[in-house]
Amino acid sequence: MSDFKEVEILAFDVFGTVVDWHGTITREVQSMQLDVDPLEFARAWRAGYKPAMARVMSGELGWTKIDVLHRMILDQVLDDYKINLDEPARRHLNNVWHRLSPWPDVVQGLTTLAEDYTICTLSNGNLSLLSNMAKNAGLPWDLILSAEVFKAYKPDPKTYLGVAGLFDLAPHQVMLVAAHHDDLESARECGLRTAYIERPAEFGVDQLKDVSPRPVNDLHADTFTTLAKILSADRQT
Amino acid sequence: MSDFKEVEILAFDVFGTVVDWHGTITREVQSMQLDVDPLEFARAWRAGYKPAMARVMSGELGWTKIDVLHRMILDQVLDDYKINLDEPARRHLNNVWHRLSPWPDVVQGLTTLAEDYTICTLSNGNLSLLSNMAKNAGLPWDLILSAEVFKAYKPDPKTYLGVAGLFDLAPHQVMLVAAHHDDLESARECGLRTAYIERPAEFGVDQLKDVSPRPVNDLHADTFTTLAKILSADRQT
Repeated sequence: MSDFKEVEILAFDVFGTVVDWHGTITREVQSMQLDVDPLEFARAWRAGYKPAMARVMSGELGWTKIDVLHRMILDQVLDDYKINLDEPARRHLNNVWHRLSPWPDVVQGLTTLAEDYTICTLSNGNLSLLSNMAKNAGLPWDLILSAEVFKAYKPDPKTYLGVAGLFDLAPHQVMLVAAHHDDLESARECGLRTAYIERPAEFGVDQLKDVSPRPVNDLHADTFTTLAKILSADRQT
Repeated sequence: MSDFKEVEILAFDVFGTVVDWHGTITREVQSMQLDVDPLEFARAWRAGYKPAMARVMSGELGWTKIDVLHRMILDQVLDDYKINLDEPARRHLNNVWHRLSPWPDVVQGLTTLAEDYTICTLSNGNLSLLSNMAKNAGLPWDLILSAEVFKAYKPDPKTYLGVAGLFDLAPHQVMLVAAHHDDLESARECGLRTAYIERPAEFGVDQLKDVSPRPVNDLHADTFTTLAKILSADRQT
């Protein structure tokens, strides 16, 4: 009997798991020739992300989508680095999150996984961001789901349980795929299955992260291609 | 200057416009050999749709997704026709809405339109229904939007304006594509552009509907292929 035979939906975290935010932002900042270390700049922008969502979830801010939060953080980071940038350039740079490049294994891996599962996003990114990204990068989602649908940001249980609820499934019939142990832990607490994906260069090639396996996750894979192979082998047992 | 140069999003009504609910349900009921005229049965089921949504929008029912409304209506229709059907068969039949076949021009037409526009659904169908349908029929949506996202059924303005709002666009940058004049009229009142699509056999080949043009709509086309040609010609003016 397969361990995951009842899984019907694979829900994917997006930033870092599907797309390389650090590499894409670094390249874009480099091409703008801003007076700043692009590797650092990308990390500084991303570092404002969780605190900004926490302000929404605490009620300090009303519901605010990630595009707007990204812009608030960007303005602060530009200020901190004393970089002058006019409004159109700020708006264009802020939209880099809609243009993030996928990791090399992603399009082929998702295409294979979609043969046997419903594949969807479960991201804090807003719907327009995620659909522009998918159109630009050719990501073959069956459904784009976002914190914007549930009006709650991960790790709020409403998001993980929301995926199961939309499909009238039990939580263990949904597997969260993510490169972040904290995201997977929150999903597991809701009863979802979990698959960890190694993305050692998520924060830059100059700052590799520890991607060693943790037994608490159901699955561990270096790429989406490997994940597809593991799940396929499991279905045949 | 093109009339529709500023349109960025094509939002599609689904039941009747994209998929042939009457034909698909007729065929499925026929194959089940129920003691009923399949053409009539399909129409009776669909006839309960607007009254059911009205009960939700009036507040008589709390938020209820279409899968559940379809099932309530189905139980009533089976009762009216004095048809015995066990629970698994009812559940399977109710899911026929997830398996509806597209009209013959749809997949090619959407694929062409997606080269120049973001194409999304704007349907009262729930998200799982629409994503299962898209996966089954190969519909290349950039984004699946539903009444379930806005917690309001068309013709509530929240739905039409909601599409523009998600993308930070003005209403006239969104065009609703539908085979129903009332849906288009409600969209127009919100400032959206409108394209009418002829689907003469929506209610069955034995009950063709009037599909003559009404000048109040911005565009009129027999198929999605024609719509793509009209929009392409317009962009070149």
